[in-house]
This record gives sequence, structure tokens and C-alpha cells, in this order.
Amino acid sequence: METTKQLTLRFASIIPYEESDPFPLENIPFGVFVNPNEQEAHCCTRVSSFVIDLALLENDRLIEADNVFRISSLNRFISKGKDYWLYVRKTLQQLLTRDNPNSLTPEQLAKYAFNSSDAKMHLPLKIGHFTDFSSSKNHAQNIAVMFKGKDGSLHNNFVHMPIAYHSRASSIVVSGGQIRRPKGQLRMGEWGATDKLDFELEIGTIIGNANKLGHPVKLQQAEDYIFGYTLLNDWSSRDILLWENVPLGPFNSKNFCTTISPWIITAIALSPFKHPLPPQDPQPLPYLHSPSNFTYHIDLSVSLSTGKTEQTILTSNFKNMYWSPTQQLTHHTVTGCNLQIGDILGSGTVSGKGPRECGSLFELSGGESIVLENGEERKFLHDGDIVTLRGQCKGEGYVIGFGECTGTVIPALDNSEYY
Amino acid sequence: METTKQLTLRFASIIPYEESDPFPLENIPFGVFVNPNEQEAHCCTRVSSFVIDLALLENDRLIEADNVFRISSLNRFISKGKDYWLYVRKTLQQLLTRDNPNSLTPEQLAKYAFNSSDAKMHLPLKIGHFTDFSSSKNHAQNIAVMFKGKDGSLHNNFVHMPIAYHSRASSIVVSGGQIRRPKGQLRMGEWGATDKLDFELEIGTIIGNANKLGHPVKLQQAEDYIFGYTLLNDWSSRDILLWENVPLGPFNSKNFCTTISPWIITAIALSPFKHPLPPQDPQPLPYLHSPSNFTYHIDLSVSLSTGKTEQTILTSNFKNMYWSPTQQLTHHTVTGCNLQIGDILGSGTVSGKGPRECGSLFELSGGESIVLENGEERKFLHDGDIVTLRGQCKGEGYVIGFGECTGTVIPALDNSEYY
Repeated sequence: METTKQLTLRFASIIPYEESDPFPLENIPFGVFVNPNEQEAHCCTRVSSFVIDLALLENDRLIEADNVFRISSLNRFISKGKDYWLYVRKTLQQLLTRDNPNSLTPEQLAKYAFNSSDAKMHLPLKIGHFTDFSSSKNHAQNIAVMFKGKDGSLHNNFVHMPIAYHSRASSIVVSGGQIRRPKGQLRMGEWGATDKLDFELEIGTIIGNANKLGHPVKLQQAEDYIFGYTLLNDWSSRDILLWENVPLGPFNSKNFCTTISPWIITAIALSPFKHPLPPQDPQPLPYLHSPSNFTYHIDLSVSLSTGKTEQTILTSNFKNMYWSPTQQLTHHTVTGCNLQIGDILGSGTVSGKGPRECGSLFELSGGESIVLENGEERKFLHDGDIVTLRGQCKGEGYVIGFGECTGTVIPALDNSEYY
Repeated sequence: METTKQLTLRFASIIPYEESDPFPLENIPFGVFVNPNEQEAHCCTRVSSFVIDLALLENDRLIEADNVFRISSLNRFISKGKDYWLYVRKTLQQLLTRDNPNSLTPEQLAKYAFNSSDAKMHLPLKIGHFTDFSSSKNHAQNIAVMFKGKDGSLHNNFVHMPIAYHSRASSIVVSGGQIRRPKGQLRMGEWGATDKLDFELEIGTIIGNANKLGHPVKLQQAEDYIFGYTLLNDWSSRDILLWENVPLGPFNSKNFCTTISPWIITAIALSPFKHPLPPQDPQPLPYLHSPSNFTYHIDLSVSLSTGKTEQTILTSNFKNMYWSPTQQLTHHTVTGCNLQIGDILGSGTVSGKGPRECGSLFELSGGESIVLENGEERKFLHDGDIVTLRGQCKGEGYVIGFGECTGTVIPALDNSEYY
């Protein structure tokens, strides 16, 4: 744990920022942006409100790299392995720290850094596969009630394994886009635009290492397979879900769009915020059992803007999960499934116990409408609504922020687009 | 339909073959093989027992191509579009027809053609996504009995839409490989190697065109999004499935391996074998309704070799499907999901009505063992068993064959590989 402690020391940055800044030198997130001068997608990091172009640093040999950063995804960088991730992190921290022999000069900084308001962010990864778990006991319980009525109880396999389904990778978009309200089969024989469009607050685990087909990843090695984490909004249509879910699980109700935040927060930046998993009862089978299973203490929130005002409608915390990211990863591979670099594992909706800690609108409203501060009511999302997920870890004298994961609901297409 | 008729005329091939040959000039399937001289994966076609290297034809300008075939997947070729697929097909037919001004000379043929027994076949596609449908009424009914007992009935949404789940693309392998028996959670609290390893006989639809996120594909345009078809074995663990399937559908029970045949049979080669879909009652919603919905008349079979003898254990036909490939495709996109070139849509198990027409072992055996000709019994697959799927369409004086889709079951790993 020596490395971790060292990396959490505070830095004297050449870019000034407040203690509450979500992107201090302890963070060093990774993303992809469109360099406004070259109009080309490059890999980047961010410090305070500045996006720093890693392709330009590679070009000027300030980072040792072999054509890693002048591309539109982080996959090649990630494929270089954990030692290289740490080298790049440390090098960036040195370049951006004052009074360091390697500090960038103001002229250099001006060349490499762009104001984040000028930086159009790009999907950070070429995402091969997206798997979505259900690992919050509170959420699973709330969903059971939705499906089975008031007396609906948690399915009996929930406490034995992190239940999951394969979801759709091609429809993952980066924060900031428009989410078309889907049309589909809402109930038996009924066609139309979904009445029950919802969000789901999740954390996405980014796979940083590939296992071989037929060879599972042991729980004690699972951490080595994780590059980092993003915010993830698993947009869902509750009416389409209810009609299609039995017998093969979610399909059209989920595959129309998923939004992730543009910045991947590395596992190393989050390591000071590890949090023991709540007790698991019964004790999991040996392949899922470890006394040191952990999640992270990440404060999460969701705000809703109805066009008039924006309001935080819920807060939650990633520490509330029943199953850990490493248990999810190990369970995914247990029958031999091969994970690939850039795959995303959705945590499942992160719901706490309190009535304002539910990670989706249908859980928050419990079938009734919630009343917003501006007097408007919402049972589900309306056209024009803007949903924003936020997350941060509070360290001693610094914050690790996740940035924002936002999307705007736009109206459904005309029927003439369908038949 | 003029084109179709013309293409089904018989050809006088420069490679002699029998009327029953599965790879006549009417077929022209596409695949990828490892050129034994260059030890490099190239795109190829096949006539009779010869694999013909398209990269070499491109190199010698016998096919107009812009670096399309000297790569290890067909994706770039497919991305060139339908007119180009037809141009390549027609060009190959001309090059390989006798007494044609463009016929290859024997010396040329010797340069471009390899005996199929010397050709190691490669996965033909870079497969972005794999979706698996349930579209055979007989199979869905049999599965319902497995889940719910003797009185299990078809779920009420089956006749309203082609039910599907997203499955796992990374674990798709080409015919000829070994299938590791998976370990996992078999029942509550029970860990071990699956006792109930099974195959599923399916047809895979290969997506040849991409739709834009948020924009569905209309049923009447869906045919333009299909490049061709393969055989597909959706290996399944029935005990893991039963324990995990509720509430989110199949996961570990399916994601350990799926096998496809090496040759993609094009939609144009299959067009003479179109077959009207059986009546759909109730009439589907308008986006899924067309008086000209079709499937194909493809004779299918599965053989089992237990090491001693090989025996055909079932026959079926793709004409038995309730939902068509185009209905599956349209339903997949209805909420706006974007398909990509190289995606595969599994048809779902192709089960007929007869007791020897079921497309999986558990349906065939009905919970009892089946007795093989050599006296052995099988309820599910044993280690060492070899499963081979075959398919063909019988034309007038020629056959369109799919080749073989085969895999050998090998023993599970030791527990020390898991924890």
C-alpha cells in the first residue's frame, strides 16, 4: 500500500485550483477530446478546468509512448498494462507540479492545455461489450415490487451471486447527448412511445486486462483486471421492460441508449476511498468469498432539470452495494467468458435505504408522482427533461470528482419512421 | 427477381464437382482462412473442395478491390455494400466458369486455390455484438416445460414479438474448436461442473449494414441489412440457466462459448429457397406485419460422435420458425438500437414438431436418456462428445451447403483454477 499513500500526497499544481476542485493532481482522469486546433480526437487528461492533450505530450517526448494517444479511444493506452498506467500518471503529476525539475513552463502549458469549455468530449473507449449487473439489494427489492406487486420479494438467487445480463455496447454514448424517447410494445397488443422513461444511477467498471476464453479470473486477481470507473446512466423504459422481461430478460427496454461520463477515474486514484463491503449473508461460495471484498465510498447524486430549474432529486453512495466490482468481474468469467479491454460492467442501480436515496425515478416516486421544488410533478421523465449524474470522493484536503453524466430527453419519432 | 433467376442457372465450373456438392458456383460463400504459404489470414471463397484466396485475386487485379481481402475478417468487404457483394460474386462466378473470356487458366487456378484439407479456417468476422432470439414456437414451448414443469405454457408475449436477449460476442469461436465444460453455480449453494451441457441448433444472421442510433429499420427495408447466414451452436448449461435465469435472463449459462460455421452463405445465394412464414396469429403489430414475411427452406441436422461412432440424432428445417430473420432485425432496432456490420443475430433453437426434430439434447431426450445406435445413452453431453451441425438447401440440380459447425467437449478445469 506504499504506492497508494505516496500518490495521495497533495501536490502544488502549476494550475491553481481550490481544495474542492473535482480534478486535482490526485485525480488524473483519462478521456478523449477533439483537439480544437487539429479537429482530431486525442487522448487527454484533466486538471481543474483544463483538458491536457496527451498526444501533444507524446509528440514532444514528454511522455514515452509509441503512438498511443493520437487516437480516438483509450484502448491502446489501457492495453499497455498497469505499470504503464502508473508511469503515465506519475509523469503527468510531475509535469504539472510546481518546483519540479520536469515542471512544464507556462509556454508549454499554454501549448498542451485547453479550457474545458472549448473541449468537445468524445466517447473515451471503443467498448466491445457492456454487461449490466444487479447488485444493490435495495434496488433489487424495489424492482421485485414493480414486477410482482407490494408483496414482491427479492429473488432467491440475489444473495448467492451478482445477477447480470449482457446489454448493448453500440448504443453507449458520451455525456451531453440527446436521448430519443423510444417507441415499442408497451403492453400486449399496444404500440407507442414509452410512458415510463426512467434513468438508472450506476457506476461503470472499465476492464483493463483480458482473460483467455475458458479461463476464469480468480477473485484475488480481479483487481488487476480493472482500469477505472465512470458514471453510467442506464436509461430504461419500464413499460417495455415489464412486457418483454420474461423469459429472457431486458432487451428493447434497455438497448436504445446508455450514457457514460467522459472521464475514466482510475482505480489507483480511487484506492484511498476503498470501503469494506457490507456483510454478505449467506457467505458466498469460495470463488466469490474473500474477507477483503471492497467497494468505494463515492458520493453520488442525480439532478433533474425540467427546463425551468435544476434540482438534486436524490443522493446515494457506492458503498451501499451488496456485491463488489471484483466479485462481479469474477462471476462474469466463472464459466470461462473472456473479458476484453474496454468492456464495461455496469454496477446496477445504486440505491440506498432512504426514500431519497433510490437510484431511479420509479423507485423514488414509488408509483406516485414526486413534486419538484418548482411545483412540477414527475412520475417518469418528460420530453425536454435533463438528467445529470454526479459523483465524488472526499479526501483530506482534496476531492476526486467524476465529472458529470448528462442527457436530454427528446420526443419520439413519428410512426411514419416505423412502418 | 430477374437477377435471382439468372444467378441460379447452372454453371460449367473449371473445378469439376458432383450435383450434390455443397459448394457449387451457385453458392460462393465467404470466409477467412490462413493462407498456408504466407501464414496470414485472408478472405476467401470456396468451390467444391477448394478454398480460393481473394487477397491473391485482389493482388493480381482479377477483382477490383481497395485493400479489402488481405485482412483477417470480412467486415471491410461487407462494409462496401450490396452492389459490391454482387459484383464480387459475379466476378468469381465468371473467373471460375469454363469457356468464359475471363476464365482462370489452370496455372492461375493452381496459384489461387488451396485444397480445403490444407486450409485452416479462421473466425470469418470481427463480431461486435451477438443477440440471441427465441423464435421457434416448438422450442419455446419445450423450454417452458423445462422451467415450469409438465403444464408449462408458452409465455404470453411469444406470439407478439420475437423475444431476445443480448448474448456474448467475445466467446464466439469458429467451428472445429474445443468447448471447455463450464463450472459455476448449479443450484442454490451448489458449485461444480455443469451436469447438463447441451447444444442448440441455430442459424446466425450476419448484419451487413448499420442503422443510426435512434432510427429503427423498417420491416420492408430489413432485407437490405442482411449479408448472409451461418450455422450457429449456442452451447448451453441447463442447470446454470435454471438457477440464474430469473430475473434478468441467461448469462453464465450461455456466455462461455458459441460456435459458428466458417462459411457465410449469402442472402443472394439463398434467395431461391425463400419460404413463406407459417401463419402468425394474432396478426403482429404494424411494424412487424407484412404479407411477404419469409424464412428459408434449409434442411438442418445435428450429429453426435461419442468417440466410437457418429450418428445423426436429429433433423430439422429453418422453415419451422415462427418469426422471420427480418422481423427479428426490425424488432431489435424498434426502440432505436443501432446494429453494426458483423453483428450476429441467432435465430433461436430451430425445433420442428416431431420428436426427432428438436434442436437441443434436452428437448430430444425430454428428461429421459436417448439411446444411441451404439448402445450408449445420453441425457446431456459427456466429455469427449463431438457435436456437428449441418445445413443445406436443395436446388434443381445443385445444392447450397452451409458446411459444418462442430465442437468437441473437453473436461472442466480443476477447482484450483477458480479459488
